Amino acid sequence: MPEMPNPEFLRRAIALATQNVVRGEGGPFGAVVVRAGKIVGEGANAVTATNDPTAHGEIVAMRAAAQALGTFTLAGCELYSSCEPCPMCLAAAYWARLDAIYYGACAADAARAGFDDAILYAEMRKDPAMRTMPSAQLLGEEAWASFAAWLASPNRVDY
Amino acid sequence: MPEMPNPEFLRRAIALATQNVVRGEGGPFGAVVVRAGKIVGEGANAVTATNDPTAHGEIVAMRAAAQALGTFTLAGCELYSSCEPCPMCLAAAYWARLDAIYYGACAADAARAGFDDAILYAEMRKDPAMRTMPSAQLLGEEAWASFAAWLASPNRVDY
Repeated sequence: MPEMPNPEFLRRAIALATQNVVRGEGGPFGAVVVRAGKIVGEGANAVTATNDPTAHGEIVAMRAAAQALGTFTLAGCELYSSCEPCPMCLAAAYWARLDAIYYGACAADAARAGFDDAILYAEMRKDPAMRTMPSAQLLGEEAWASFAAWLASPNRVDY
Repeated sequence: MPEMPNPEFLRRAIALATQNVVRGEGGPFGAVVVRAGKIVGEGANAVTATNDPTAHGEIVAMRAAAQALGTFTLAGCELYSSCEPCPMCLAAAYWARLDAIYYGACAADAARAGFDDAILYAEMRKDPAMRTMPSAQLLGEEAWASFAAWLASPNRVDY
């Protein structure tokens, strides 16, 4: 079971979000990753500042934590985010094997501030053919070759 | 409307995926970002090689394309991925404003090769309280302060 949330870590995430806006460095989102009661990584939205559409506060914080800990898994860690994670950041939290997510503002708040999180959650739920993002499969059989190589690889690192 | 898919770009993505496995550098996933018929960014899974749980092939390719183009939006670009993007990468494609996604293997293929994409899509569709990732909101009112600062900011860069 994850530890009980500590509001002070969330206050730090909120402070990072507000500071990011005041400094003109990006969107109003901040996050910290905590392990055993200590912050091991933090970040704020850096999409426009670094020309990286994936640099949401949570992603920046998770990357920083993984670097600091020298690992690609954050099992045993909790994420504190100033806002409910968007689908990108929520899925990243699963891949990182985080123990829990604690957040301040909700997706509806983000929508009121002009961010698309709620729309994105709706898109995720749709059948691919019904999404606003066009997508199509091709070369399905050829593409299996990469997985065949993976399954046959003697020195693969599972993750 | 996005351009018609060109299988050669997908073959490049599949080659990057297979090469990544053969070189022992990471998972069997590769991707390229194409603009006006030219590759502007490419990447392969680098989760274990770089200790970055978010370094999926598509994310690496999108970051590379944004850096190469000097912009935080990839409108006018298409993503070619050796495999159907997971929810993290799909949501990233929306944030990057990509025109379209073309992929080789599907999520069910990835599951057969040992990857959790299908489970993750199911998690995304669930009500937060029903997900395997515990999450909770706290300090909802305090957290609005970051959005208030954003809405009041005279020099914000919308994205």
